Amino acid sequence: MPRVKVNGVDIYYKFNGDGEKILVILNGIMMSSESWGGLVPSYVRAGYKVLNVDFRDQGKSESSKDAYTITQHVEDLRGLLQHLKIEKINLLGISYGGQVSMLFALKYPHMLESLILANTMARLTNYLKSIGEAWDEAAKLKDGEKFFRLAMPLIYSDTFYEKNLQWLKDREELFSSILTPEWFERYLRLSSSHGDYDIVDKLSNIQVPTLLISSDKDLITPYRELFMIHERIRDSKLVVIPEAGHASCYEKMEEFILVVLGFLALSTNE
Amino acid sequence: MPRVKVNGVDIYYKFNGDGEKILVILNGIMMSSESWGGLVPSYVRAGYKVLNVDFRDQGKSESSKDAYTITQHVEDLRGLLQHLKIEKINLLGISYGGQVSMLFALKYPHMLESLILANTMARLTNYLKSIGEAWDEAAKLKDGEKFFRLAMPLIYSDTFYEKNLQWLKDREELFSSILTPEWFERYLRLSSSHGDYDIVDKLSNIQVPTLLISSDKDLITPYRELFMIHERIRDSKLVVIPEAGHASCYEKMEEFILVVLGFLALSTNE
Amino acid sequence: MPRVKVNGVDIYYKFNGDGEKILVILNGIMMSSESWGGLVPSYVRAGYKVLNVDFRDQGKSESSKDAYTITQHVEDLRGLLQHLKIEKINLLGISYGGQVSMLFALKYPHMLESLILANTMARLTNYLKSIGEAWDEAAKLKDGEKFFRLAMPLIYSDTFYEKNLQWLKDREELFSSILTPEWFERYLRLSSSHGDYDIVDKLSNIQVPTLLISSDKDLITPYRELFMIHERIRDSKLVVIPEAGHASCYEKMEEFILVVLGFLALSTNE
Amino acid sequence: MPRVKVNGVDIYYKFNGDGEKILVILNGIMMSSESWGGLVPSYVRAGYKVLNVDFRDQGKSESSKDAYTITQHVEDLRGLLQHLKIEKINLLGISYGGQVSMLFALKYPHMLESLILANTMARLTNYLKSIGEAWDEAAKLKDGEKFFRLAMPLIYSDTFYEKNLQWLKDREELFSSILTPEWFERYLRLSSSHGDYDIVDKLSNIQVPTLLISSDKDLITPYRELFMIHERIRDSKLVVIPEAGHASCYEKMEEFILVVLGFLALSTNE
Repeated sequence: MPRVKVNGVDIYYKFNGDGEKILVILNGIMMSSESWGGLVPSYVRAGYKVLNVDFRDQGKSESSKDAYTITQHVEDLRGLLQHLKIEKINLLGISYGGQVSMLFALKYPHMLESLILANTMARLTNYLKSIGEAWDEAAKLKDGEKFFRLAMPLIYSDTFYEKNLQWLKDREELFSSILTPEWFERYLRLSSSHGDYDIVDKLSNIQVPTLLISSDKDLITPYRELFMIHERIRDSKLVVIPEAGHASCYEKMEEFILVVLGFLALSTNE
Repeated sequence: MPRVKVNGVDIYYKFNGDGEKILVILNGIMMSSESWGGLVPSYVRAGYKVLNVDFRDQGKSESSKDAYTITQHVEDLRGLLQHLKIEKINLLGISYGGQVSMLFALKYPHMLESLILANTMARLTNYLKSIGEAWDEAAKLKDGEKFFRLAMPLIYSDTFYEKNLQWLKDREELFSSILTPEWFERYLRLSSSHGDYDIVDKLSNIQVPTLLISSDKDLITPYRELFMIHERIRDSKLVVIPEAGHASCYEKMEEFILVVLGFLALSTNE
Repeated sequence: MPRVKVNGVDIYYKFNGDGEKILVILNGIMMSSESWGGLVPSYVRAGYKVLNVDFRDQGKSESSKDAYTITQHVEDLRGLLQHLKIEKINLLGISYGGQVSMLFALKYPHMLESLILANTMARLTNYLKSIGEAWDEAAKLKDGEKFFRLAMPLIYSDTFYEKNLQWLKDREELFSSILTPEWFERYLRLSSSHGDYDIVDKLSNIQVPTLLISSDKDLITPYRELFMIHERIRDSKLVVIPEAGHASCYEKMEEFILVVLGFLALSTNE
Repeated sequence: MPRVKVNGVDIYYKFNGDGEKILVILNGIMMSSESWGGLVPSYVRAGYKVLNVDFRDQGKSESSKDAYTITQHVEDLRGLLQHLKIEKINLLGISYGGQVSMLFALKYPHMLESLILANTMARLTNYLKSIGEAWDEAAKLKDGEKFFRLAMPLIYSDTFYEKNLQWLKDREELFSSILTPEWFERYLRLSSSHGDYDIVDKLSNIQVPTLLISSDKDLITPYRELFMIHERIRDSKLVVIPEAGHASCYEKMEEFILVVLGFLALSTNE
């Protein structure tokens, strides 16, 4: 299992493909490198070397001994890339991973070829904070099944519930078996890393070609928040995946793959 | 405290005003007669005698010894009205109370002058059931503060969270002091009363003048569901309260009062 | 025919009802006093004395000899009210009439008890100007049937077209017989009166109780514009009539009547 | 100028690029091969041989002597492809061109590798017919400037008007110089070719991989119509370009290019 000690913590990473160009993928807060199994092959076939990373306290990365803020992941990623002697990346981040991606773009702009931000936000509204508090309460129960039941209705769209109930039930079972007490402790540390996150005023400093992916039924990071980012990052394109909630990469996996491939093709193409 | 034994259970009711026409108000599942304090005076001033009722297992009504389905409330209301010698009512129901109101309209149409349905549904979608399950999990914790935190983000709109955070914090504290273990037991019985509720195909039998109130950010009973009811009840009018979630009567109290007053005026007027 | 010379032009007006409170109605640019036949009786029955007015160059009012800006109508209304010895009014304006109503509210606030603004705007966007230019081109053809065909798809919603095609066809015929060459000349003068209309920054000076009526499929004065007004007039309420375009008072007449009645009841009520 | 006589009419076509895979592009009713100048290079760079075609009565194709229905273009395209000895194509059609593309997919499914449908419809609603009638009236004036003013507000979004007024003004001038009386006669024949176009019930027979592109402010072929197609073509993906009207390929050219490239990459990829 490839892990490397960065800033005192073992960070897990995994390569797929052997293209020249590199696509780094950063996870949403409840996800891990394994969550991307359905999407990575498409990016590999399109000629990319895909680098999945688990944040500290996530997936197969080590737990953090200390408290940290979200910017810690920026330094962890930077350290990992230095170790791997990678100087230039395309960076895709979803939700929490999108927040980290924007912070990385602001701190290390010269390392980016392009930026892909899906279902993410540049600030914490009261509403987002209240959702965070709800999930923290749910996590404190340290019960995967209950956590799933309490958190999912905000994540998946009603459309998805109508058409894929069995998939969701299976996933509930999966959560129930996978989410250990330790998982919840790690989750709660990740969740508390947001601090007073608000980078709206800094977004105009991001000058790398950027793709923004929104979905029309995303309650957590609604279209309005993605549009706000779009208006501030000059070289950004905004595309909407319809009939999908916050989990667009699961709910509409092919559409998600498609818009990312299109953006990468366009970037290469020009 | 005015209570009357109906179908074996003491049902609480309260009159306000002394108009000739009667407006009966049925609560949402987490509400009680007291929830309407801000709205009742307006309807009284408009000349109505307002009758608030708490369902069995709700507010000041007695707990139910036995399990029951939602249709039980129809018979309880009917029994109460017989006891009070009331033959004709205008019936306003919100959410769960709206479900009961439609069932009442189907069973006792001759007792209705008009029907007002706010933020309600004629069927349980998978998504609604999953929200119900989430709230059941939350209720089982029997902790008002946690229940509030877990359930509210689906009920109040993000707009309301941005503008009224303090009100919500105060309310969280209120819930925390008011919601006793017994409250949660009663809630869970009410919640389990839905059964296979689906009256879509029967709606066309409702022929009384009907007002439908929807709000644009209602995640629980979205516009689509209200529109579905509107298309099936011939003599229905549909109005939307914008920038509001499921709790439209709290989030936009004056707009809520206004459309109800307008509908009542129109009915009387013609 | 009751007309009175105001500012050099005979202004037509008509009373209905004999209530104490007065409701003045100002027309959209293509409308006249006669357009309100279906709505006035409801307001009369609710106890209002309704005063319909035709702007100069509109309906049965005289044509203007000179060019004028939209503020002229404010002075014309003020002059008419002085003549009629009316000191206090409730003012309902739709679209162009809504623009005049806001200007009136800014100039003569002491004469207002309440303000009702339907499907209107506080500024001219490029898009609105381009629609104005399209209609001007259409008007220059001086052919009622062609004018109707060219202008209506922007005014009525697609929903209305699906459900009320015959009504629209009948109306096309009516336009074709009623719209004389003189009507188009008058229309073009009204249309050119907008100037650089933009009162967004002054809206916060309006302090009278205000109702804003929007409809969800209004292409000409979309929800966004009504919401902008709502945010700036402190004591304003905003209600949406769904499945309707710019012509909400025709497309959903009963809902339109209802929300106005509700607002008037609420104002009186408090 | 490459033209070939097909079904009695000279059809203009133009190749760009020399990839193995072929992308045929079919125009909207007011467009021509030249309209795609900004998009074709991207598809060429992505390895496609792009074949632009002008329908009879469009661009550099010959005028039709006889009346015809929209299915005529299907046979014209088929004839052209036979002449060019092309057996398999990827077919991209926008609006009217999208209608032809779906008809082609139903008639000659074996010739398609994939189908891309942008801002199009599978039926004519009353509203669409009324827009068609409005444009016919405008076309009968045979004046490019007037036609532009009368037709464009339905085609471009209000967003686009706010941000690109000068571009629109330049385009108005262009139309005014280019649109000859003959252009309008040809337009009117194209416009009258729709007949009773309604292929909703046949859509489920389309089994080729399909991309549907919608835009959120398209008044002519609104999202609802694209979604209706999406629900009936099993192997279809639906993506929305936000803040754009019917002319999505002009209003948001890069986003349009991107989603098409992504779909082509995905198709090749799998």
